[in-house]
Amino acid sequence: MNNQFVIEIGRLHSEVQAKKPIIHHLTNYVTVNDCANIVLALGASPIMADDIEEVEDITAISSALVLNIGTLNQRTITSMLAAGKKANQCNIPVILDPVGAGASQLRNQTIARLLDQIQISILRGNMSEIRFISGSDASTQGVDASERDIANAGQTGMETAARLASKLNCVVAITGATDLISDGKRSLYIQNGHPLLSKVTGTGCMSTSLVGGFAGVTSDYFIAASAGIMCMGIAGEIAFHAVGSKGTGSFHAAIIDNISMLNDQTIAEMAKIHE
Amino acid sequence: MNNQFVIEIGRLHSEVQAKKPIIHHLTNYVTVNDCANIVLALGASPIMADDIEEVEDITAISSALVLNIGTLNQRTITSMLAAGKKANQCNIPVILDPVGAGASQLRNQTIARLLDQIQISILRGNMSEIRFISGSDASTQGVDASERDIANAGQTGMETAARLASKLNCVVAITGATDLISDGKRSLYIQNGHPLLSKVTGTGCMSTSLVGGFAGVTSDYFIAASAGIMCMGIAGEIAFHAVGSKGTGSFHAAIIDNISMLNDQTIAEMAKIHE
Amino acid sequence: MNNQFVIEIGRLHSEVQAKKPIIHHLTNYVTVNDCANIVLALGASPIMADDIEEVEDITAISSALVLNIGTLNQRTITSMLAAGKKANQCNIPVILDPVGAGASQLRNQTIARLLDQIQISILRGNMSEIRFISGSDASTQGVDASERDIANAGQTGMETAARLASKLNCVVAITGATDLISDGKRSLYIQNGHPLLSKVTGTGCMSTSLVGGFAGVTSDYFIAASAGIMCMGIAGEIAFHAVGSKGTGSFHAAIIDNISMLNDQTIAEMAKIHE
Repeated sequence: MNNQFVIEIGRLHSEVQAKKPIIHHLTNYVTVNDCANIVLALGASPIMADDIEEVEDITAISSALVLNIGTLNQRTITSMLAAGKKANQCNIPVILDPVGAGASQLRNQTIARLLDQIQISILRGNMSEIRFISGSDASTQGVDASERDIANAGQTGMETAARLASKLNCVVAITGATDLISDGKRSLYIQNGHPLLSKVTGTGCMSTSLVGGFAGVTSDYFIAASAGIMCMGIAGEIAFHAVGSKGTGSFHAAIIDNISMLNDQTIAEMAKIHE
Repeated sequence: MNNQFVIEIGRLHSEVQAKKPIIHHLTNYVTVNDCANIVLALGASPIMADDIEEVEDITAISSALVLNIGTLNQRTITSMLAAGKKANQCNIPVILDPVGAGASQLRNQTIARLLDQIQISILRGNMSEIRFISGSDASTQGVDASERDIANAGQTGMETAARLASKLNCVVAITGATDLISDGKRSLYIQNGHPLLSKVTGTGCMSTSLVGGFAGVTSDYFIAASAGIMCMGIAGEIAFHAVGSKGTGSFHAAIIDNISMLNDQTIAEMAKIHE
Repeated sequence: MNNQFVIEIGRLHSEVQAKKPIIHHLTNYVTVNDCANIVLALGASPIMADDIEEVEDITAISSALVLNIGTLNQRTITSMLAAGKKANQCNIPVILDPVGAGASQLRNQTIARLLDQIQISILRGNMSEIRFISGSDASTQGVDASERDIANAGQTGMETAARLASKLNCVVAITGATDLISDGKRSLYIQNGHPLLSKVTGTGCMSTSLVGGFAGVTSDYFIAASAGIMCMGIAGEIAFHAVGSKGTGSFHAAIIDNISMLNDQTIAEMAKIHE
């Protein structure tokens, strides 16, 4: 399966560059610039718009909707719900990044409302966030995964992902040292990436945006999630080897560099996935 | 004319560095950091403030006002109108960047309100945005110009710019592979720049901010618009030759680098303008 | 004193990396990405959250609270007051960056409300901002210190810092060519840094965030303030020597690089402090 799967990811990567799908984001103000730049680097076209008076118009001209609650507020929560419902009506995929799930009542309630009122296509978070949403015992470290939760990667983590995917009828992706992707039936481990990625803010958000870019050109959300997350991991590895010794500022720019320079051959050569 | 015009741009560039004009921005949260950094790199002093209770105070101490609707919302629309009126009262130039014109009713209505209630000094957008505002047939691609509209650059595009400039009594600048500047009487083509600029978010916004920087030291808004847009193009060319092969993250930083390193001689040597 | 003091700063630096304290920010949308990245580069864990419904929850799980009024608005002012009161209840240090004090009535009133209702632990600003707050004659240049106020560094500036520190019962840090730190009894001059730091937006905000990082692991706020500001200065010096000749975009990334690469030895070798 893997070889064919990786070739298909390469093909989708080319398709993003050919079709330039518009990816509508309602996201946080911390990492929004990086999300826009990484979507452009992939070859898609980002648009950020969050006012209730325009989110439906913008979602309607888009090929995917990314909802990221990193700096949620009352105004943007309302807009996220409206945009998500519109996306469902238009059969546009909705990718949810539940940043900081477990860290506040507002985040927890908002995630519950989004999952209740919107059919999510892909849910991407770290181990603490996904464990919290799945109802498993989770310990939060703000917006970062806690070390105790990280220890649950592997078989236990994949079971969490698969169970939640079945329950929500969507793809669940848990990113970390090993990334776990499941749609409840299929499952995949990705071992690309580098520990330094956790020292740059927004590498999770950027992964979610890349997933949005791929979801803009395919209705197979399992492969879209895998593709976005694997590309982030590959770019992180190349970036680390190129400039990791300089520090995290240079590494940050090099992540974007290496998404913009990705091609099918690099993807094929560097993919580290297994079922 | 061109030689004298380019010398005058060099002189204004030095004047920005000497006077450090304060440039008040009400802008989007996607590219705001780049706008602030490019204004500093030019030698001016950016200030971002958008609350209705302070925008008039801040405009009153500034030398130019930049309004950018990239992530407009009800709150900031009200503030933009108040700041713009204050700028008109204080005889401070107002530079408008109508990001995503045509993409939503809210954007279209907001642009109409801004143009109706505020005397704009300089309007800078891409071909889709300006065609939409001019009432020409336009096809939107979110916040990017559509390929069909880009094909309207050249003579037809300049006629659009000139007609709109006369109607609005302001300078209209359409940026793209060739930049078109018109105040209804004078017109100018600029052929600096590089295609990779379209792969970094906010290069349009940054151009608008540079135009704001120049407008802070001269009341000739035709030359201010030309200067800001030409400097962006020159910086893009140098940045591409320096690091373009690394990717868009490095290119992004190098754009700012090369605005900060610009001098009159580089401007004179690299200017590609014709009437 | 200095040698022991610098060794203690190095020890605290290691402690930040070991404990990874969560630093809650209510800050501006211009430099928020840099603030998050520099806190990560230091080894701490940033979280940005500003909705009134969650700020108390987030403050309660944090080790320090940073309030930065760079792009304040009615909504976030209310949230800042709530978060600050919660921090006081929880005995969590509050670091205030009064960006643009003196530039608008709203900023002035907000600073007065924050100082009235919240016990601030550390106040960090430029000379214009701190002079304004202290009631001294100050001339504002938007969000930058005016040249006239900068001339007040040195003995006069330190007296301003010490008086205000005693009045507010907190540490006051005035950053500039020479940084002045006082808690009313102890005082310290830091001469690390480089003039190019003033050409990148948010270097003041980033200093404040670094101070927040150190305040997350010690209740000696005088050393926390000194440590954060000195680390910024040292990183600026190394960054300038590494890439300053390229321009401010590369310098910007290199500041983050050099915070991420800092170690006790570099701190000990480069510290330039005197009483």
